[in-house]
Amino acid sequence: MRIHVQNPPDEVLFPITPEQWDAALSRYPDLDDLQVSFSSDPAGLDPALAEAEVVVTWTKIVHAQMMGGDLGGRAPKLRMVFCTSAGIDRLLPLDWLPPGVVLLNNRGTHARKAGEFGIMALLMLANHVPFFADRQREAQWQPRFGSVLAGRTAVVVGLGSLGGAIAEHARHFGMRVIGVRHGNTPHPACEKVVPQQELDSILPEAEFLVLACPLTPETQNLMDRRRFGLLPKDAKLFNIGRGPLWDQDALCDLLEAGHLGAAVTDVTVPEPLPPDHRAWRTPNLLVTPHMSADDPGTYNDRSLDILLENIRAERAGQELPNLIRPDRGY
Amino acid sequence: MRIHVQNPPDEVLFPITPEQWDAALSRYPDLDDLQVSFSSDPAGLDPALAEAEVVVTWTKIVHAQMMGGDLGGRAPKLRMVFCTSAGIDRLLPLDWLPPGVVLLNNRGTHARKAGEFGIMALLMLANHVPFFADRQREAQWQPRFGSVLAGRTAVVVGLGSLGGAIAEHARHFGMRVIGVRHGNTPHPACEKVVPQQELDSILPEAEFLVLACPLTPETQNLMDRRRFGLLPKDAKLFNIGRGPLWDQDALCDLLEAGHLGAAVTDVTVPEPLPPDHRAWRTPNLLVTPHMSADDPGTYNDRSLDILLENIRAERAGQELPNLIRPDRGY
Repeated sequence: MRIHVQNPPDEVLFPITPEQWDAALSRYPDLDDLQVSFSSDPAGLDPALAEAEVVVTWTKIVHAQMMGGDLGGRAPKLRMVFCTSAGIDRLLPLDWLPPGVVLLNNRGTHARKAGEFGIMALLMLANHVPFFADRQREAQWQPRFGSVLAGRTAVVVGLGSLGGAIAEHARHFGMRVIGVRHGNTPHPACEKVVPQQELDSILPEAEFLVLACPLTPETQNLMDRRRFGLLPKDAKLFNIGRGPLWDQDALCDLLEAGHLGAAVTDVTVPEPLPPDHRAWRTPNLLVTPHMSADDPGTYNDRSLDILLENIRAERAGQELPNLIRPDRGY
Repeated sequence: MRIHVQNPPDEVLFPITPEQWDAALSRYPDLDDLQVSFSSDPAGLDPALAEAEVVVTWTKIVHAQMMGGDLGGRAPKLRMVFCTSAGIDRLLPLDWLPPGVVLLNNRGTHARKAGEFGIMALLMLANHVPFFADRQREAQWQPRFGSVLAGRTAVVVGLGSLGGAIAEHARHFGMRVIGVRHGNTPHPACEKVVPQQELDSILPEAEFLVLACPLTPETQNLMDRRRFGLLPKDAKLFNIGRGPLWDQDALCDLLEAGHLGAAVTDVTVPEPLPPDHRAWRTPNLLVTPHMSADDPGTYNDRSLDILLENIRAERAGQELPNLIRPDRGY
C-alpha cells in the first residue's frame, strides 16, 4: 500500500518525519506492507498523487492543491485522504472528493492537551484571570475573589474528544456538567445530555459555557446575540472550537456592557487577529492564538497512530473511526 | 467559655457574622457552653478583652491593637488568639504573647481553593499564558505551543495544606512531584521529599517550582539570585506563599534576560504593588493580587470549623492542630 506524506514547505514545528513514521510502524507490526514517500515541496504532490493510495497532509494543502482540480483524474489510485487536524470545516462541502475516496481527520490526537487547556480555562474564569490580566496592563492592584469549581454548572457544547476530555476534568473538580451534542447519547462525565436543538433551554443554567463542537453549517453562529442573552448574568465562556461558532462582535459588546462575566478564547475571526481588532482590548476577554490543542511533543505520534488504526480497521472491514461523513460535515 | 470576634471596621467581604457563628455551632453540638460577642469597632476590643478567653480576629488587628500594649494586663482571662489567616509572619517574633496564651492560625481553610489556583498556575505556565497576556497588551498574535503536564517535574516547597493540595493536583495530572519541607516526612503525592537544607541539590530538576511555605526567618529570601541560577533554563515558577520568599528583583532580572521561562505570582513586595513597579511590566510575569487562597463562599465556615475543632481538642487534652509554635514561627 502506497502512502504519501505531503508536509508544508515552511513547517518547522509539526512536519511528519521519516523517524516518526518508522516509530509509528514499529507500534503496528502487522502493517508491514506500507510504503511511504515524503515531500515538503508543493511541486512534489502531483507526481506522488499518480501512485498514492493514501495521502497524509494538512487541511491547508488540501484546500490549496487538492480541492480545486480534477482530483480523481490526478490521483487514480487514491482511496483515503488523512488530514492532520480535527477541524476540517474549510474543506466543506465535500463535493470535491472523488467517488470511492474517503476523508479522515485526526480527532483523538488533541484530547489530552485540549482537556488540560479546557480545565485551565475554567479555573482562570473562576479566578478572574482575564480581569487581572487587564488590571496588569493598567498596573492596578485590585483584588477580586473567586470560588472553587465544585457544585457549579458547566455546559459543554460538543462531546467529541475535546469536549469529552474537558467534561471529564470538570467532573473531577466536582462540577455539574451538562452536555450538548448532536443526538442525545449519554456521556459518563455529564449529569445530562441534551440535543443541540434544545440548547436554548439549558443556557440559563450555564454559569460556565464551553464551545467544543465542530464548525458546520448547523453550528455556525450557534451562540448568536439572542442566545448570549439567555445566559445568566456574569456567565463565563470558553471557546476551543472555532471562532464562527459565536457572534464575536456580540460577545465583545456584552463583555463591554458587563452582562457576560469573562471569556477565554483560543479561536477568533479572523485568524490571525489583526493588531487593530477590538477583541485584543475587550475587557475580561483573554485571547490565545489557536494553540490550545496541539502538543508538539506528542502530536504526530498520536496522528500517525490514528491513521494506522484506521488502515487496520479498513483491512478488517470495519467502520473507519475517523471517517468524515459528508452529510454531517465532521 | 467567652469568645470575642473582632472584625475590621471596613470589612465587607469576609466579616464573621452571627449567622455564620450559629451555623458553625450547630455542627459542633457538644460545644454548647460557648458565649460569643462581636465587634467591628476598634474601641470595642479592649472592653471585650477584659472578659474574653478566646479572641477571633485578623492578623492586622492583632498587629495594630494587641502586639503593642500590655496584653496580659488588658486580657487577664485570655488563653487563645485565633487568627483568620494562615500566614502570621507579620506577628513574629511572638514575644508579645503573654504566658499561657496560645496563638492559632486557620491553616486548612485555604487548601481546596489554593489547590485549584495552584494547578491552574502550573497549567498556565505550561501553556505560556503569561507570554500570551503580554502579547495581548501589544495586540500581537504569536502562537507558541505547550506540552501536557504528564511526566514533567514539579518541585513544591512547603507541604502544608497549600503545597500539599497543589502536589496532589499535580500528581493527578501525571507530574513527577518532589517535595521540599521542614524535615523529610514523606508525602503521598511526592515521589520524594527532601529537607529544606538540601534545596540546592533538587533545583536543577525543577522545570516547575512552586513556593508554598510559610515566611519565617529561615525561608526569607529562600530563592535568592544564586538559587535562581541553579534552576534549569526556561524554568517556570509559581509563588503562593509570600513575596519575600524570593528575591523579586532577581526574578524580574532573570525573566527579562530570558533565563527563567515564566512566572505566576499571587504575592509581591510590597502589597499592594504600586503602579510604577517594574513587576507589572516584567515579561512573562503574571501578577494576581493576593486572592488565590480565599474563597468568600466557604472561608469563614471553614475557619470557624477549625477554631471549634481546636477548642474541642483543648478540652480533650489533645495537642492543638493549629497551634503556632514560637520556636519555628508557623
